[in-house]
Amino acid sequence: MASALRILGIDPGLTRCGVGVVDVRADRSATLVHVGVVRSGADLPVSERLALIAAGLREVLAAHRPDVVAVERVFAQQNRSTVMGTAQASGIALLLAAEHGLPAATHTPSEVKAAITGYGSADKLQVQTMVARVLRLDALPQPADAADALAIALCHGWRRGTPVAGGTGETLTPAQRAWAEAERASRR
Amino acid sequence: MASALRILGIDPGLTRCGVGVVDVRADRSATLVHVGVVRSGADLPVSERLALIAAGLREVLAAHRPDVVAVERVFAQQNRSTVMGTAQASGIALLLAAEHGLPAATHTPSEVKAAITGYGSADKLQVQTMVARVLRLDALPQPADAADALAIALCHGWRRGTPVAGGTGETLTPAQRAWAEAERASRR
Repeated sequence: MASALRILGIDPGLTRCGVGVVDVRADRSATLVHVGVVRSGADLPVSERLALIAAGLREVLAAHRPDVVAVERVFAQQNRSTVMGTAQASGIALLLAAEHGLPAATHTPSEVKAAITGYGSADKLQVQTMVARVLRLDALPQPADAADALAIALCHGWRRGTPVAGGTGETLTPAQRAWAEAERASRR
Repeated sequence: MASALRILGIDPGLTRCGVGVVDVRADRSATLVHVGVVRSGADLPVSERLALIAAGLREVLAAHRPDVVAVERVFAQQNRSTVMGTAQASGIALLLAAEHGLPAATHTPSEVKAAITGYGSADKLQVQTMVARVLRLDALPQPADAADALAIALCHGWRRGTPVAGGTGETLTPAQRAWAEAERASRR
């Protein structure tokens, strides 16, 4: 098996936090590992909701042991009433990456669209269709937050170019290993 | 010693996160327990900065064992470049409250000003002067983030009216105890 980078993509949110794990290889081919959504009820206090999101993300980290975490960047300019909850959930995602000793990156929505479709203003359906095609899925991932999380993970794998080995038993050349270790160290 | 509510007030921020712990008694008198600032360097990745903030807040929680956590509410309308980092830090503060089994509340800046000075548009110096007077401090707490954290804690203690017992060895009437337990349960 070729060395692959295992990426956890997170589309942050309080009501639905999308999570997608993919393996991306040096030839840019990718495999679905896990996709899902962590939910929290709007009737709960925000602190409890964030604890549920954290617990769900910790489960995914433990079960799938990604090499890196990629989170969609949130902007204050997105004038939705949910933007503060989204920012808080993104903070939880980044905190958990650091606490698991993993590098974390953020990507803007237009970076994700451009990476997936070649076009920064692509619509959601174009992005989801391409994600399903790349991962050889029979249907579009549902809900949209889950598909978005996969898109963020793929974006991260493709934008950085050279994959870092993940897991055990994978073969890297000495040069690849040195590069991967330097890259990891620089992101810590 | 009269029963007191121990409140951890947090003025969230990535560069400087203000923390203030006060005991507030039923007669509204208050005592300083701890005041400080948790810092993180702007040269670090956001995920590492959030981990430093979380570590600092966990230290305060462990050392001073508050009954409740009060966090300043962040608004997207605050059009500062730091607002997303502030929101992420507030998410960490709320998460840690939940993970320590503590109720958490948020208060807006004008709620804090009104509670401390009686005037929702009070300036920062008025708020800090009143905080120093109430807590019988010889000087205004520095930096401003630390003073703001104390103001948030006092605001929470005064707005909710009746203190809940904190720690052990404090004497509550049976009615006070029942009320306190119901109040805590409703916030979990």
